[in-house]
Amino acid sequence: MNLVLLQPEDFISGSGRARLRGRRLKHIREIHRAVPGDRLAVGLTDGLIGRGEIMAADDSSLELDVELEHEPPPPLPLRLVLALPRPKMLKRVLISAVSMGVKRIDLVNSFRVEKSFWGSPLLTAEKLREPVILGLEQARDTILPQIRLHKLFKPFVEDELPELIAGTTPLVAHPGRNAPLPDAVTDPATLAIGPEGGFIPYEIDQLQQCGFRVVSFGPRILRVETAVPALLSRFMKV
Amino acid sequence: MNLVLLQPEDFISGSGRARLRGRRLKHIREIHRAVPGDRLAVGLTDGLIGRGEIMAADDSSLELDVELEHEPPPPLPLRLVLALPRPKMLKRVLISAVSMGVKRIDLVNSFRVEKSFWGSPLLTAEKLREPVILGLEQARDTILPQIRLHKLFKPFVEDELPELIAGTTPLVAHPGRNAPLPDAVTDPATLAIGPEGGFIPYEIDQLQQCGFRVVSFGPRILRVETAVPALLSRFMKV
Repeated sequence: MNLVLLQPEDFISGSGRARLRGRRLKHIREIHRAVPGDRLAVGLTDGLIGRGEIMAADDSSLELDVELEHEPPPPLPLRLVLALPRPKMLKRVLISAVSMGVKRIDLVNSFRVEKSFWGSPLLTAEKLREPVILGLEQARDTILPQIRLHKLFKPFVEDELPELIAGTTPLVAHPGRNAPLPDAVTDPATLAIGPEGGFIPYEIDQLQQCGFRVVSFGPRILRVETAVPALLSRFMKV
Repeated sequence: MNLVLLQPEDFISGSGRARLRGRRLKHIREIHRAVPGDRLAVGLTDGLIGRGEIMAADDSSLELDVELEHEPPPPLPLRLVLALPRPKMLKRVLISAVSMGVKRIDLVNSFRVEKSFWGSPLLTAEKLREPVILGLEQARDTILPQIRLHKLFKPFVEDELPELIAGTTPLVAHPGRNAPLPDAVTDPATLAIGPEGGFIPYEIDQLQQCGFRVVSFGPRILRVETAVPALLSRFMKV
């Protein structure tokens, strides 16, 4: 937790003082080992970042005097369309993507996504919020990303994808003898990444008909948790 | 397992037939669900890749007729110097780095590496081999990387690092107002990545004295398992 992410309801009404309990209290006391007088990086969800000085702390709550001054880091100008990863990978992939600044993630079905993945208890809005918060706290960001689930590939591509890719360069990373992914992409983009084993030819056809360009990321087949940060890196301005 | 990695001792002496048991047998039968007549991607450790046709299979062993024809994918022209990650991250980071083609990994101490990490049972040569094999199988590679451990930072930097970086561009990724990491690095490089929280100023000084250039990877602080593939990506030719 490189930043304590605050909600409006954490603030004592009408003041610049926030009161924390639960996970954040525990983390600040046990991991940061912070005590009254210490100052921590804080941010308001969907708002500014700044510093919070610990004014009081005991086993049940902690109070911070908060000053919010700066914009969070710029978002990654990339929309991610990702074949639903297996549940044990999903959380890590979401933390990675959110920490790198992705603000729109569409998790889609594909022929090679196992049906059982869609039954994972991790796919509720509440459970999906956990890796999102961890990713924002990691990167000192405050802007919540949108995550959408699409259990049917064809209706998503035909009915929703055209609007999603509007104003962006749509690319699909796919193994094979395609044009290489550019070293650095500076315009807003939409990047589609298939499941382990890749999208099937029918799905690639559908994406191409929607306007996607098929690009290669070299001969090595990477696990999704490696491929996602490696691919997103090409869209980062540093 | 996108490639079955074979050892010389898997071959029935004087033949092109390999006999597998244990983990690889189990994986081929249960995950690939392959049967006699099926052909699998195979490779010989530190050698060529090709195809293996299953000639026989039962619960105790499986026999493959092997033809080795092609070079494995080119290595990443990058030596990785990485502050020892916490044990639960180490395996995943090694799989990522090996699958992306890194052939030399030096795990080093740093002020912010917890002492207890060096006591991890994962740091034996035998245990380190597991993620290495998984990374090679993932990326259809055969060339074993070298992994070295350095429990003392200063003697490593003073006595061993000059030789390691010879003929490469030495870079250390470090948060702050430094020159940005280039979009694409094509010459051989050595990349140093610090622990969570970064190298301390003394360590950065030592690396600079050794010839390292300090480069920034943007304002976002990334977990090591995200940072490693994201950084390595900038050195990949696709």
